[in-house]
Amino acid sequence: MNMPKNFSIKGVGKYLPKNCLESHEIEAELGLPSQWYAQRVGVETRYRVTDETCTQMGVEALREALSDAQMEISDLDGIIAASATFDYVIPNRSTLIKEAFFEAETLDFPCFDINTVCTSFITALDYASTLLQGEEYQNIAIVSSEIASHGLSSNRPETYGLFGDAAAAVIVSKSSTGENLRYMQKTYSEGVRSTIIRGGGNAYHPKNNPYEMDLYSFDMAGTHLLRIVNKYIYDYMDRFFEKTSTHLSEVDWIVPHQTSLFGMNLLTKINRGKSDNIINQLSVYGNCVAASIPLTLVNSIKEGVIKEGDRCLLLGTAAGVSICGLLLNYSKS
Amino acid sequence: MNMPKNFSIKGVGKYLPKNCLESHEIEAELGLPSQWYAQRVGVETRYRVTDETCTQMGVEALREALSDAQMEISDLDGIIAASATFDYVIPNRSTLIKEAFFEAETLDFPCFDINTVCTSFITALDYASTLLQGEEYQNIAIVSSEIASHGLSSNRPETYGLFGDAAAAVIVSKSSTGENLRYMQKTYSEGVRSTIIRGGGNAYHPKNNPYEMDLYSFDMAGTHLLRIVNKYIYDYMDRFFEKTSTHLSEVDWIVPHQTSLFGMNLLTKINRGKSDNIINQLSVYGNCVAASIPLTLVNSIKEGVIKEGDRCLLLGTAAGVSICGLLLNYSKS
Repeated sequence: MNMPKNFSIKGVGKYLPKNCLESHEIEAELGLPSQWYAQRVGVETRYRVTDETCTQMGVEALREALSDAQMEISDLDGIIAASATFDYVIPNRSTLIKEAFFEAETLDFPCFDINTVCTSFITALDYASTLLQGEEYQNIAIVSSEIASHGLSSNRPETYGLFGDAAAAVIVSKSSTGENLRYMQKTYSEGVRSTIIRGGGNAYHPKNNPYEMDLYSFDMAGTHLLRIVNKYIYDYMDRFFEKTSTHLSEVDWIVPHQTSLFGMNLLTKINRGKSDNIINQLSVYGNCVAASIPLTLVNSIKEGVIKEGDRCLLLGTAAGVSICGLLLNYSKS
Repeated sequence: MNMPKNFSIKGVGKYLPKNCLESHEIEAELGLPSQWYAQRVGVETRYRVTDETCTQMGVEALREALSDAQMEISDLDGIIAASATFDYVIPNRSTLIKEAFFEAETLDFPCFDINTVCTSFITALDYASTLLQGEEYQNIAIVSSEIASHGLSSNRPETYGLFGDAAAAVIVSKSSTGENLRYMQKTYSEGVRSTIIRGGGNAYHPKNNPYEMDLYSFDMAGTHLLRIVNKYIYDYMDRFFEKTSTHLSEVDWIVPHQTSLFGMNLLTKINRGKSDNIINQLSVYGNCVAASIPLTLVNSIKEGVIKEGDRCLLLGTAAGVSICGLLLNYSKS
């Protein structure tokens, strides 16, 4: 039997780069017609780093989450970094975030990284809520910090304006009120290379592959991806909900990955034409890779949109191709 | 209370690149005296890829593990990739491994990546053994596949000859016999940049940082790291064993990360001068990052060194700096 996975969200925080890039600026740069991004991509503004790193952004988001939770870094029992992009190949993201807190010098809680690309936060939240059922963890920080903008090619106007940089942090704690009601990830293999950054790893190592913008940038076959997701998502939703006592119509809020305009439209279709409980922040931030889902969650909690006891469905698609969802009963206490 | 985490290791597999590089070849290349690597680094041979990728090596190791388990890929309920190096920035490692099995096209089990650098396999094994207690997982593959050799600088002779490439895979299954008796990871923050590959991520992105061997290669402050580990390891071991009914002297086999000659010597000291139950394969394979621990485990199981019912302590240090250990009661059934 699966055990109940209770947890509360004690604190939330975010960081956005100081530089906010408006669509008309990119349209001017690329010689695109006015409103091209609003109409085709669904993004009006996105934030882009100037000199910030993933670590710095993650630390700022975590500081805000700690303050919201009225906690110190010493109250944490672990940090999970849940992101696709990173500052260094080695060491991993979470250890760098911890180390940046000078107060953490004498702390020895574990740090680990989880990566399911855009749905990393959901996978990490499931893992954290499992860990909280044991004796060793009271409070775990999950931090998603992404810099997508270094890997964008102006030869691909859609992705060039679609992605944004951001960080979000959530502190999850032992509790008897909130609950992880259901988690399911499915990886379909079809279209595994439909979202790819080819250069930078061992397949096209910088040693033998000098920087070329297209090789080192997001390459996303949007229409193909959408076709794959469309093929599997209905079956996914059925299987997700058949193991819960909740019906999709009883979900208070859908907190989705902010994939793209077409992705958001598909979500409305899946939600039987209903869009008013789908939290859509695509136009403001763009697609922030793994930071999109927690950023949307953090904003909705901060703004009081998501309230105590609300059932929230975190749902996203990821390169791979995966679909990943987690249904939670929100509680701060 | 922490619940028991039973699991068995149904199958093990490995892949080594075809190219075996002997120390005298590197000594000749760098103009070092004969026996320099044997005496200073403790490595006689290490394997290096020619055209293999992390994915290909991981797939070969997993095929061998499936065959050992008398399973097909369709018997798996999940793949966890547990590595520091990777083929692509996006998508993640595990989805690429799954997709490479053409039989996997119709399978939709989840794939995720865990990264605690050199101890990724231990962290993944703890996670997998937790997942196996629920209803959804019967068999999980953990695959560690590392190509360190693209990131080595001939200006740093020690690391240049220390690291090797390898992949190892382990299939863990629901069982009532074997058990994860204790897992503990501690991250100390001191020396977070003492093992680093600076280039390739967002801190020194290829876009603004053309390839330079030293920037894009392992930089390891060995002596400094050893000092940090030496400072914390005794307390770590006490805290690890105080929560088990096993004493260090009752451990049948220590399966360590094959860090370095000095790391292995420190381990003997921790083990109270006893080295005959420490499985030392450093001289044959070098340090294979996260693949070292599972490769050592896989070989020891294959060779019949580790036997049914043996208590094995997987133990390693990782960039960050972390110390990570897992005590298991080995069972194949």
